[in-house]
Amino acid sequence: MMTTVLENKTMVEAGSPGLAGIIAGDTSICCVDQGKLLYRGYPIEELSEKCVFGEVAYLLLWGALPNKTQLEEFRTMIDGFHGLRPEVIDTLRKIPNDVPMMSVLRTGISMASHFDAVGGQSVEDLRKRGVWLLAVAADIVAARYRLMNGKEPVEPKRGLSHAAQILYGCHGVDPDETAVRILDLTLTLYAEHDFNASTFTNRVICSTLSDMTSSVVGAIGSLKGPLHGGANEEALALIMRFKDASEAATWVQGALARKEKVMGFGHRVYKNGDHRARILEKEMRDLAAKKGREDLVAIYDAIKDPIVNKEKPIYPNVDYPCGLTYYLMDLPPDLYTPLFACSRISGWAAHYIEQNQDNRIYRPLSRYVGEGLRSVPGISDR
Amino acid sequence: MMTTVLENKTMVEAGSPGLAGIIAGDTSICCVDQGKLLYRGYPIEELSEKCVFGEVAYLLLWGALPNKTQLEEFRTMIDGFHGLRPEVIDTLRKIPNDVPMMSVLRTGISMASHFDAVGGQSVEDLRKRGVWLLAVAADIVAARYRLMNGKEPVEPKRGLSHAAQILYGCHGVDPDETAVRILDLTLTLYAEHDFNASTFTNRVICSTLSDMTSSVVGAIGSLKGPLHGGANEEALALIMRFKDASEAATWVQGALARKEKVMGFGHRVYKNGDHRARILEKEMRDLAAKKGREDLVAIYDAIKDPIVNKEKPIYPNVDYPCGLTYYLMDLPPDLYTPLFACSRISGWAAHYIEQNQDNRIYRPLSRYVGEGLRSVPGISDR
Repeated sequence: MMTTVLENKTMVEAGSPGLAGIIAGDTSICCVDQGKLLYRGYPIEELSEKCVFGEVAYLLLWGALPNKTQLEEFRTMIDGFHGLRPEVIDTLRKIPNDVPMMSVLRTGISMASHFDAVGGQSVEDLRKRGVWLLAVAADIVAARYRLMNGKEPVEPKRGLSHAAQILYGCHGVDPDETAVRILDLTLTLYAEHDFNASTFTNRVICSTLSDMTSSVVGAIGSLKGPLHGGANEEALALIMRFKDASEAATWVQGALARKEKVMGFGHRVYKNGDHRARILEKEMRDLAAKKGREDLVAIYDAIKDPIVNKEKPIYPNVDYPCGLTYYLMDLPPDLYTPLFACSRISGWAAHYIEQNQDNRIYRPLSRYVGEGLRSVPGISDR
Repeated sequence: MMTTVLENKTMVEAGSPGLAGIIAGDTSICCVDQGKLLYRGYPIEELSEKCVFGEVAYLLLWGALPNKTQLEEFRTMIDGFHGLRPEVIDTLRKIPNDVPMMSVLRTGISMASHFDAVGGQSVEDLRKRGVWLLAVAADIVAARYRLMNGKEPVEPKRGLSHAAQILYGCHGVDPDETAVRILDLTLTLYAEHDFNASTFTNRVICSTLSDMTSSVVGAIGSLKGPLHGGANEEALALIMRFKDASEAATWVQGALARKEKVMGFGHRVYKNGDHRARILEKEMRDLAAKKGREDLVAIYDAIKDPIVNKEKPIYPNVDYPCGLTYYLMDLPPDLYTPLFACSRISGWAAHYIEQNQDNRIYRPLSRYVGEGLRSVPGISDR
C-alpha cells in the first residue's frame, strides 16, 4: 500500500526532481546564463584569453584579479604548500593499481589534511586552505600517476604554474609550452560553474559548519560520477569507439532514433550551447591539425553535427571537446576527471568561504511516498 | 556595484535559504512529521521497543523487517565483513592523535573501500555494500579508539550485535548488557531521518552516478559539522560547563535574553518536539538514577525547563539527551558523532539505493548577486 501519511499540506506537493529550476542560494562568485559565463563579473572568453589559471584561482578566492605583487605572493604560497608528506605517499603506495584515480584523490586529500592543512576559520585562513588544497591535489594526482606506472614520485619544482607543475609532476621532465598553455586553458574553463552537483555538495557539507577538507572530499566524490566530472573521459571513449567518421555517423543516427543520451552533449542550464565548449573546441581543432589527427576531428564532427543540427538541437558541453583535447595532448584518460578536480577546487573553496560567511544549514524536505502507519510484528510473525 | 545580470526572470527570484520548506525528492524510507517518525511505515516508538538495531538496519536496506532466518543471514553477512585490512590499520596508525575521530573515519572508510568493498551496482550488491560499510565503520572507530589510547586493535568477535561489537572493539572485553541495550537503542534512534544534511549530501553525490563509498564519505564530512552530528558532543559540553543546576539556570536565563541558540534544542522540521528525544530522555533518567548522577540530570533540567516553558517553546532534539546518556555510559565525547555515523550509514545506504533507482542529477540554480559584467584589465592596470 503506497500512501502519504504526512499531515502538513505544504509538504505533500511534489518537488522538482534534481532541484531543476530551484534556486538553492545566492552567489557572487559566478554567473551562468544563456548569454554569458562570468567569474566575479569577468566573461570567461576574456579570462581564458588574458589570464593564466593562477590569476583565475586568485580571483575566485580573493574576489579580485591579482596585480603583479599579489600574483607573485600567490605563487610563493602555492610553492610552499607543494610536496607530499611521506605518510601520504605511503598511503598512496598501498592503494591497488586498478582503483580509479578519483577515489585515490578522495583518500589522498583526506589523509593529507591530517598533517599539513592550514588551520583556522578566518577568511584569510580559508583562502590559504584553498591554495593548500590546489597544491596537494596536484601532488597526489602526479604521485599516483607515477606510482601506478612503476615510477617514484618526483619532488615538485618551485616556480612553475599550476598546469606546468601537474605535467612536471606526472612526467618528471619540463613540459612543452603548448601542453602547458592548453592545460592551463582547460583549468580556467573548469574552475567554476555556480551550483553544479559537486559545488552544491561542497556547500551542503559546509552548511553544517564542517571543515573545508570534508567539503572538498565530498565534492570529489560527487565530481567522480559519470553524469558530472566523469563525462570528459566518457566523451573521449565514445569518439574512440569508431574507426572513422562514417561509422560514427551511422551510430549517431541510431542513437538519435533510440532517443539515447549522448555523452558530452546537453546541459541542465545551457540550452543554446556551453560557452566553454566553443572556446575549447577551437583549441582542439588547432591541436589536431598540428598533430595530424584530423581523422579524430572528423569523428568528433560526425557525432556532433547531427545532434546540433536536429530540429531540437542539443549542444556539446565543455566535456565533449575536453576529452579529445586531453587525448591529443597524450594525457591518459584516467587523469581527465582528476585534472578537472585540480582546477575546480578553486571554485569549491570560494563557495565554501561564501557559504561559511552567510550560512544556513541545508535541510530540505522530502515527500513521503512509502508505506502507511503499521505496527511492528513479533519476529516469529514475519 | 552589486547588480544582477541574469536574463532569465525565473532565476532572479530569491530561493529559500538552506532549502527550508523545499521538497528535494520523494522517499519511501522515512516519514518525519510533527505527529510521528516512521521508518518504512513503522513508528520509532515501536521499533525502539521491539527491535534491535540489526533488524532496523535490515528494514532500511531491504524494505521489510527480517524474520529469524533473514536476521541470522544478516548477522553472518556483517560478521564476514568485520576485520580491517592491515593497509587500513597502517593508515590509521599514521594519523596524529589530535585529529578528530570523524576526520579519521572519513579517511579510513575511503581507504578501506580500495580493498574489500563489495562490487557491482545491483540492488542486492548495494545492500551488501551498506552492510560492509556498517562493519568497516565500527571497526575503524574501535581501532582508532584503541590506537589513540596506546593499545593495539582487537580482532572483531563473531556473533555480536552491532552495538556489542563496537563496545567490544573499543574496550577489548565483553560489554555489559545495559550498555549494549542503551547503545543499541541510540543506534536505532539515529539510523534514519529523511533529508537531513548528511543524507541529502549522500543523495546529491549519488545523483552523479558516483559510488556508494564516495556518497557515504561525503555524508560523514557533513555529519561532522556541529550544526548536525556534532551536536550531541556539544550538548554534553554545555551540561558539563556548570557545577550545579543553579549555575545552569542563571546561564540559560542570560542565553535566552541574548536570544542565543542553545545546542541540542530546536529542529528544522519538528516544532512540537523530537520523538526520539522523548524516548531517549526516559532511558537517560533511569541510567542516571542507577549511576547516582542525579546532579547531572538536575543541570540537564535546569537548562531545558526554561526553554520548553517559554512563550514560544523550543524543544530538545535527540542530541540533547544523547550526549548525557553516552557520558553516563562512560563513553568519551570524541566517540559520540562517530557512533551516530555507525548507525546512520544504514539510512545513507538505503537512500543511496533509492536515489540510484530513480535518479536525476541534483543541479539547482543559484541567484547571482555579484559584480555586473566587466572587462579584464591588463595585469599592470590592477
